Amino acid sequence: SKELGELVGKVKEALESNAARRKPKIAKGARDFMPEQMAIREKAFATITAVFKRHGAVSLDTPVFELRETLTGKYGEDSKLIYDLADQGGEILSLRYDLTVPFARYVAMHNIAKMKRYHIARVYRRDQPQMARGRYREFYQCDFDIAGEYAPMVPDAEVLKVSTEILDDLKIGDYEIKLNHRKLLDAMLDICGVPAEKFRPICSAIDKLDKEDWADVRAEMVDDKGLAPEAADKIEPFVRLKGEPLALLQELQGPSSGFSGHAAAQEALADLALLFEYLGAMGALKRISFDLSLARGLDYYTGVIYEAVFKGASQVGSIAAGGRYDGLVGMFSGKNVPAVGVSLGIERVFAIMEEQARAEAERAKTTLRKTQTEVLVASIGPNLLIKRMELCTRLWEAGVKAEFLAQPKPNMDKQLTYALEEGIPFMVIFGETELAQGIVAIKDLKAGVQENVKEGELVAELRKRLSTQQA
Amino acid sequence: SKELGELVGKVKEALESNAARRKPKIAKGARDFMPEQMAIREKAFATITAVFKRHGAVSLDTPVFELRETLTGKYGEDSKLIYDLADQGGEILSLRYDLTVPFARYVAMHNIAKMKRYHIARVYRRDQPQMARGRYREFYQCDFDIAGEYAPMVPDAEVLKVSTEILDDLKIGDYEIKLNHRKLLDAMLDICGVPAEKFRPICSAIDKLDKEDWADVRAEMVDDKGLAPEAADKIEPFVRLKGEPLALLQELQGPSSGFSGHAAAQEALADLALLFEYLGAMGALKRISFDLSLARGLDYYTGVIYEAVFKGASQVGSIAAGGRYDGLVGMFSGKNVPAVGVSLGIERVFAIMEEQARAEAERAKTTLRKTQTEVLVASIGPNLLIKRMELCTRLWEAGVKAEFLAQPKPNMDKQLTYALEEGIPFMVIFGETELAQGIVAIKDLKAGVQENVKEGELVAELRKRLSTQQA
Repeated sequence: SKELGELVGKVKEALESNAARRKPKIAKGARDFMPEQMAIREKAFATITAVFKRHGAVSLDTPVFELRETLTGKYGEDSKLIYDLADQGGEILSLRYDLTVPFARYVAMHNIAKMKRYHIARVYRRDQPQMARGRYREFYQCDFDIAGEYAPMVPDAEVLKVSTEILDDLKIGDYEIKLNHRKLLDAMLDICGVPAEKFRPICSAIDKLDKEDWADVRAEMVDDKGLAPEAADKIEPFVRLKGEPLALLQELQGPSSGFSGHAAAQEALADLALLFEYLGAMGALKRISFDLSLARGLDYYTGVIYEAVFKGASQVGSIAAGGRYDGLVGMFSGKNVPAVGVSLGIERVFAIMEEQARAEAERAKTTLRKTQTEVLVASIGPNLLIKRMELCTRLWEAGVKAEFLAQPKPNMDKQLTYALEEGIPFMVIFGETELAQGIVAIKDLKAGVQENVKEGELVAELRKRLSTQQA
Repeated sequence: SKELGELVGKVKEALESNAARRKPKIAKGARDFMPEQMAIREKAFATITAVFKRHGAVSLDTPVFELRETLTGKYGEDSKLIYDLADQGGEILSLRYDLTVPFARYVAMHNIAKMKRYHIARVYRRDQPQMARGRYREFYQCDFDIAGEYAPMVPDAEVLKVSTEILDDLKIGDYEIKLNHRKLLDAMLDICGVPAEKFRPICSAIDKLDKEDWADVRAEMVDDKGLAPEAADKIEPFVRLKGEPLALLQELQGPSSGFSGHAAAQEALADLALLFEYLGAMGALKRISFDLSLARGLDYYTGVIYEAVFKGASQVGSIAAGGRYDGLVGMFSGKNVPAVGVSLGIERVFAIMEEQARAEAERAKTTLRKTQTEVLVASIGPNLLIKRMELCTRLWEAGVKAEFLAQPKPNMDKQLTYALEEGIPFMVIFGETELAQGIVAIKDLKAGVQENVKEGELVAELRKRLSTQQA
């Protein structure tokens, strides 16, 4: 019956296997990154990582799965989107939903007092994918967070500064950062007569104002969420307030503002005054729009909240978002470590950069390169495969990126076509005649120039040309 | 009853949540990468990626999960180690077990005829973790594969050449690459009288010869796997054959060799003759040990197989392995695309490099750096936070990696200690006095020299010092 068990196992495997029966598929909402896309992705990551490193951030990586209990109770209504692993005996695990909760778990578990870290990795949401709009079930996030006790609003200012540097350096279009304060939002709701237990649901209604009219949002508040119509009507003038940070701040600090005399609101306004001063010193204030309609859904924010959005008609939507979350680490360890961070929605960045690269390649009539190969080692005539290998090896050893065609006797047309299609800038060409004379030709495909050099000087000659080209 | 459902949900969440009740945990067999480890990991990845790019490989990325049917029937006995996702409605998914099967799925799905690609990513195995020995349930692999029709043995030679370049460039110790041919192995078993249906089980017994005595392996063959004792005894002299590739090849090609007259064996030996010639041309033959006891467990190998192992007593075990698998793509699409590749077990590389870095830091009495920060902007006296921010911003804008302490009035001791602990090479120091004179001091912490420069020339002066230091 051990044999019977094995037989049943084999039949089951054969039935479950898709071997040779149909086209293989990829999981819904997931995608392969093609080589051209990977080249762009690597460029984006390098740009972003350079900003993080410029600010002295350390790099951190956490597992793709966490104990389910780590994720439970952190995402409100969105918890239903968490991917669970099957119970195969042992622990109950889920795929990470974002990078913030694993970071908080890390800080709590390793007893970290202070940390400025970045993390670029994939997260998982069992959402309805809309791949044409860049919404996947598996997607990258780039997170930057500062945890620990520091002078008030200094880390908040640096997180915002980092966000502007990244969006500037990526060169993907004009943007602004909408900014609000969770405590100011709560004060506003309090002043308007919203009962405390309705704060979060009313916030998620307000958060839709970037996509919906006030009438629709009001209907959601009153009809769906049971808010008194008078309270809803009082909210409207508040959430219409937005604009240049210092001007709006001054207005809200004034005696005729609705916030006058509300202690929590005054605290939030004092926070913002300090933040705006720091952002001014860092040259980032010009990117900020103080916006009382920004509410953000997540439960764990406790202070400043923000969201970067593209300006103009062509590119819409949020590209980065974050805020202060002083209570999250304490949910794990019982000991609070205040923290503030931002998460960049890099998938949209990829899409924009791909579009830009395609347009640029078309304009310049060049190839979108997949590799970084600098030299194709090519030969004329038969029996030269070994010699191509030897020359290529010499180039590899000198750190030159080189290829040869893995065919016994490729003709010159084929080799030239390959170099042009792949955008390889140089070819090394030789036949029996050249070898007998101890020379090889270097062909510069961009300049269309071909020169003979001594075989022994090939590496030096190529290096000279490659460094000129890069300069 | 909607409300009741919500209440039940909330109670369930509260019960499942670990909020503030106990120390948070990480999943068994997984680990966080600490900042010091990340710095080393990034260095290793950069070294490895440079080799791949030098060989004209493209980069590819696939999702962390695949349809379960994609993985089914590919891993033999090890299939039980696959992590499954929970069935939450929709597709049945599993976490990837390696990077080879997703690559084959990719080649089949996108109808790729030729591709030389690398992929550095995590894979998942629900094995008994032995973390002290570097065995995790989530771990990195670095894969390099060449798919497509090429001149025989040329891609095989390049994959082995790439393996040697990586192991050389990583500088982690002396190694050799054991090499065999699946067809030669099958011929050997055939010649010894092993029935065809026992080839794979007997192979997995042979594969243990690097850890076990012949007596134990023989016992497994005869007692557990039901092989005739005479057959087992015939295998012994074969699997003792190992050594310098060309010498052993010549011996096996000779008329007195056991393989004489066996057609499949002669084909395999012809393959190896060609491979060794190419490896000679590429300067990689000296790393190879032709070893008839190398068997490798996986079902999908069809040609050359190899495994890189450390030499010497201190570091044992396999560090890279691979082979030719001409049938795997066809299992998905029905259309075969031959392929050959190697997978580097990078976790062991990390462990060795960490050990080296610690020893080096201890020897040189330096800090194991977590960041790349070049300058700490420090001030003397109160009310200079804004000025520190402004100077730091100027450095960031110039591309200099700079930090300041996020405190209103940090004392000089604290700032100096921070710079020393973090290994930051330079400090910019100023107080009210210096500002009034339009100067700031640059302190070179390594040289112990401090010089005043004009504030307006700070960036240029720092750049000069930073470039000298790097040279």
